[in-house]
Amino acid sequence: MPLPNRWLTACLVRYEGHVLLIDCGEGTQITMRRTNWSFKAIDAICFTHFHGDHIGGLPGMLLTIGNAGRTEPVRLIGPKGLKRIVEGLLLIAPDLPFPLEYQEISGPEDAFDIYGMEVRPFRADHRVVCYGYAIEIHRLPKFQPERAQELQIPIKYWKVLQQGQTVTDGDMVYTPDMVLGPARKGLKFCYCTDSRPKASIAEAVHGADLFICEGMYGDPEKQQSAREKKHMTYQEAARLARDGAVQELWLTHYSPSLVNPKEYLELAQAIFPNTIPGKDRKETTLRFEEP
Amino acid sequence: MPLPNRWLTACLVRYEGHVLLIDCGEGTQITMRRTNWSFKAIDAICFTHFHGDHIGGLPGMLLTIGNAGRTEPVRLIGPKGLKRIVEGLLLIAPDLPFPLEYQEISGPEDAFDIYGMEVRPFRADHRVVCYGYAIEIHRLPKFQPERAQELQIPIKYWKVLQQGQTVTDGDMVYTPDMVLGPARKGLKFCYCTDSRPKASIAEAVHGADLFICEGMYGDPEKQQSAREKKHMTYQEAARLARDGAVQELWLTHYSPSLVNPKEYLELAQAIFPNTIPGKDRKETTLRFEEP
Repeated sequence: MPLPNRWLTACLVRYEGHVLLIDCGEGTQITMRRTNWSFKAIDAICFTHFHGDHIGGLPGMLLTIGNAGRTEPVRLIGPKGLKRIVEGLLLIAPDLPFPLEYQEISGPEDAFDIYGMEVRPFRADHRVVCYGYAIEIHRLPKFQPERAQELQIPIKYWKVLQQGQTVTDGDMVYTPDMVLGPARKGLKFCYCTDSRPKASIAEAVHGADLFICEGMYGDPEKQQSAREKKHMTYQEAARLARDGAVQELWLTHYSPSLVNPKEYLELAQAIFPNTIPGKDRKETTLRFEEP
Repeated sequence: MPLPNRWLTACLVRYEGHVLLIDCGEGTQITMRRTNWSFKAIDAICFTHFHGDHIGGLPGMLLTIGNAGRTEPVRLIGPKGLKRIVEGLLLIAPDLPFPLEYQEISGPEDAFDIYGMEVRPFRADHRVVCYGYAIEIHRLPKFQPERAQELQIPIKYWKVLQQGQTVTDGDMVYTPDMVLGPARKGLKFCYCTDSRPKASIAEAVHGADLFICEGMYGDPEKQQSAREKKHMTYQEAARLARDGAVQELWLTHYSPSLVNPKEYLELAQAIFPNTIPGKDRKETTLRFEEP
């Protein structure tokens, strides 16, 4: 439920100038206006599910993306039924200046790449079909020019080898492992709302640098409500973060009854210390490890 | 376009506990939360037209009305196509705890009564079919007990006569004019957005106690934009108010380019002195004249 001081849950992910929006409830475009993020740069919108608080702002958002001057396609990604539902909503925004591309998810195997981000949907457990999203940026091993020199590999092949491709030159075959250092950790970001906790979520988010997860209720006495409404308590989210061995957990999607999200934070931190209460327009930048 | 400090144009009308909402753009429910008006009491929603900024907030509003405990029907009123468009939007809010009643307007002759308010739609001139609304509360003439006594009318008939009905008792026929004073002015409120000005609007709003009208542009240099986009300037709205001999004009539906709505106010006031710039959650109470 959107409140005057708390907007509906949504998330923007930016990588090399490309922007992915996850969910778009009523008012998402309004709070986004307070950030310095570009509407025109939104290349794709992923939906977790089709409840009004996660998709109701789509017509207005698309109109605003159009007003910002976008003419390139926008890709929409979500559970089955996406096209039918979006076409229903777009009866009130019929003349967009850019095409829409629909991508309906059938299962977790439907991983896809979008502008260098590998997006893997994973199944959540809600009242309707719902997906979480794991987004990974892979990082190539470091190129080692001194080894390339030792092996007398022509400089013209360095770039291709650096990008992980094998080169054949007459009898000579140069493989990336000849010039690349050890594997390097990339970045992983995961997002999950609305859902009950389950082991497969902890697996899907394993090792994430940042896991944003719903924490509908802080008060452990709301456990029964969480179960009935297919949501999570802070403690359940913290257990997922712990079991998934993530680096950091942000809580979000608070119930309107949760006036002060910090109130029950210690209960979650007792399970997963690096639990942070999400708030409107909270931002961070994830960076590759050095070197 | 909804802005962080300026919500989309909408209007609540309350009469004897019944509430009529006119238009419901993205975020209308959020700004409404800052008022003390009841969601549960919304009996009807009138739409001027089906552009996203006037109806995009409907799914969330209906969900919130449901959460507020309403089980009585909500009547939706708007141009032809209303049912089809609302059903498209409601794919994301499928399980409302109250029934919806649809009333599609064919023309200005489709006046209707809703809880004592006489609502008369009038045709606007926009890029799509669009209506303004004139709402009147009629006032019965004053009952004059001294005349009823003089004429020896039995007290049991007074109430019925007071309500304007004729009573027959044997040979005796009592008519309301026997006991009622002169006609009394009622209340009239009119709302018009989005539209070019035209004479029939001035006629429809004639004599209104309050006329809320779009003033998309203050700057007279935007006259051409107003014409192209089928909107009005402040001066055009003021001319309608003057020609319609209304008591008071509130401007609304400002362009995002109009940062300070007071800037061009004097230009409108030169035409219609009682022009007031509307702002978020501006309220007034219209009262019958004494006695």
